[in-house]
Amino acid sequence: MLLTIVYIIGITAEAMTGALSAGRRNMDWFGVMLVASATAIGGGSVRDILLGNYPLTWVKHPEYLLITCVAGIVTTWLAKWVVKFKGIFMRLDALGLAAFSIIGCQVGLNMGLHYGICVVAAIVTGVFGGLLRDLICRQAPLVLHHELYASVALIVACLYLALHHYNIDDNISVITSLVVGYFIRMASVRFKWRLPTFSLLETANLKNEQ
Amino acid sequence: MLLTIVYIIGITAEAMTGALSAGRRNMDWFGVMLVASATAIGGGSVRDILLGNYPLTWVKHPEYLLITCVAGIVTTWLAKWVVKFKGIFMRLDALGLAAFSIIGCQVGLNMGLHYGICVVAAIVTGVFGGLLRDLICRQAPLVLHHELYASVALIVACLYLALHHYNIDDNISVITSLVVGYFIRMASVRFKWRLPTFSLLETANLKNEQ
Amino acid sequence: MLLTIVYIIGITAEAMTGALSAGRRNMDWFGVMLVASATAIGGGSVRDILLGNYPLTWVKHPEYLLITCVAGIVTTWLAKWVVKFKGIFMRLDALGLAAFSIIGCQVGLNMGLHYGICVVAAIVTGVFGGLLRDLICRQAPLVLHHELYASVALIVACLYLALHHYNIDDNISVITSLVVGYFIRMASVRFKWRLPTFSLLETANLKNEQ
Repeated sequence: MLLTIVYIIGITAEAMTGALSAGRRNMDWFGVMLVASATAIGGGSVRDILLGNYPLTWVKHPEYLLITCVAGIVTTWLAKWVVKFKGIFMRLDALGLAAFSIIGCQVGLNMGLHYGICVVAAIVTGVFGGLLRDLICRQAPLVLHHELYASVALIVACLYLALHHYNIDDNISVITSLVVGYFIRMASVRFKWRLPTFSLLETANLKNEQ
Repeated sequence: MLLTIVYIIGITAEAMTGALSAGRRNMDWFGVMLVASATAIGGGSVRDILLGNYPLTWVKHPEYLLITCVAGIVTTWLAKWVVKFKGIFMRLDALGLAAFSIIGCQVGLNMGLHYGICVVAAIVTGVFGGLLRDLICRQAPLVLHHELYASVALIVACLYLALHHYNIDDNISVITSLVVGYFIRMASVRFKWRLPTFSLLETANLKNEQ
Repeated sequence: MLLTIVYIIGITAEAMTGALSAGRRNMDWFGVMLVASATAIGGGSVRDILLGNYPLTWVKHPEYLLITCVAGIVTTWLAKWVVKFKGIFMRLDALGLAAFSIIGCQVGLNMGLHYGICVVAAIVTGVFGGLLRDLICRQAPLVLHHELYASVALIVACLYLALHHYNIDDNISVITSLVVGYFIRMASVRFKWRLPTFSLLETANLKNEQ
C-alpha cells in the first residue's frame, strides 16, 4: 500500500522530468506524452518483457498510463515551476528510484527467480526508463556516464533481498529499503559520488574485431 | 479480407519509404531489408511484445517478412521512380496507417483488453514502425515532432471502437474507419495540421533531477 | 557440449569488444557492464523476445550474465592488451558468430517454426548484439553499413538447416557449420567482401511520404 503510493509519486515525478527532456527537443504533445510515459513506466515494461511477466503493469492498470500522460502535458504548462523547484523533484525521483528497485525485486521473487536475476530486475526497473528517454531524445544516456543510479538500485535490491531472506516483516523491509535508498541517492548527488570511468583514448580502428 | 489487402498494401508502401531512409544513410542490402521490415512490421511487433500476444504476425506469416524484404530491395532499383511518385506513396501510407490502427484495435479487443489499451495498441501499431526506422537511421523521430500521425491513429481507433461498441457490422466499421482515417491523414498533410509543440528554451542544466 | 563451449568463448569475446565501445564513449563501470552484456547476449535476448521463447537464456543461466559483466570490467584493465591482440579477438568473434547462428537455428527448430523464421532467428542472434551496442553507444551501426555479418549468419543457417533436413548427425552438422562459418567470416574480413550499398543522394525532402 505504502509502496503503491510511493510508486505513483515516483512515476509522476519521472514523467515530469521526461516531459522536460521532450521539451528540450521541441517535441509535440504526442512526443511529450510518449517520452513522459517511457521515462516513467518504460523501466518496468522492459523488466517484464525480459522476464516474460505478462500482462505488463500498465496493461493491467491503464490508470498509470493516464497519470504519466497527464503529468507530461501538465508539465508543458508548469515547466518554469518544475524547473524552479527542481530540488523537490530530485527528492521525489530518489524516492521513486528506491520504490522501483523494491518492486523489481518483488517481481523477481514472485516469479521464483534466482537472487542474482532479482537484482538485475531491480536495476532494469530503476535505470531503463531514463535510458529509453535518452535514446528517444537522442542524448548521451546519463545513467551510463555520470550518475550513481544503477548502484543505488543495486544496493536497495541487495538490502531488500537480505531482509526478505531473513524473514523480516515485509512492511519493515520496504520502509527500511526506501529510506536507505533515498539517503544514498541524495548523498550521491550531494557529494558527487561517481563510479570509475573507462576511457579508451586510442584512435586505432577496431572495426574488424567487432 | 479487405483489411488484409489494405494491410499488405500498407506494409509494402511503408517498407519502400523505410528503404529510402536506409538509402539516405548509405546502408548495404541487409540494412535496407532490416530498415524496410522494421518500418513496415515493427509497429505491430512492438504492440504484440507489449501485449504478450504471441506468436508475432510475421512468425505466423513469414510471407509478410518476405514482402517487406523484397519491397526494400526493389526500392533500391526504383528509387527515382519512388521519389517521383511520392504522392501515390503518401496516399498508400495514409491508407496503411488507418489499416494498422484498426488492426491494433482488433488485437486489443480479441485479447479482451480495456478500451483505453486498445487505443494505445492502435497508436503503437501505427507509430512505432516509423519510430524504429528513425532510431536505427539515427534521425530525429518525425512522429514526435512534425506529423499528425499518432492523432490520426487515435481518431481511427476511437471511431472503430465506438462502432464496435454499438454492434455495427464489422465490415461497415472497417470501411468507415479506413475512409475517415485516410481523409483525416490527407487533410492533415494538405493543411499542415500540427499538434502544439513544447519547447523548453532554458539552458539550465537539470541533470540532477533526472 | 562443443557448442556450449564455443558459445561461452563467443560471448566473452563479444563482451570485450562491447566494453571497448563503451570505453570510447567514456562510460562508467555500469555502462561498461551494460554495453558488454547487451553486445554479447542482446542478440539472443531479442530473438527470444521476438519468438516468445521464455525464459531468456540468461534468466535460466545467470552465470552467463556474470561472465559478460566480468569480461567487461576485466577489459577496462586489459584494454591495451585487448587492442594489441585484436587478431585473436577477430577469430574468436568469427567463431562466436557461427555458434550464435547455429543456436538461433536450433531455437527455431525446437519451437517447430518455419525454416524461413529459423534463418531469421539465426540472423537476429548473430547481428542484434552489435546493433544494440551501436544504438546505446550512438554510433552508426556497423552491421548495416560495412560488414558481411548478417550474410555469414544467413549462410551458416542455411547450411545447418540443410544438414538437419537430411538427418545428418547433429555433431557433424554443428562442426561443419562452425568451420564453414568461421572461414567465410575470416575470408570476408581478409578480402573485404561487401554487400552492395544503396546510396540515395537526392536532397529532396520526403517527409510527407513517411
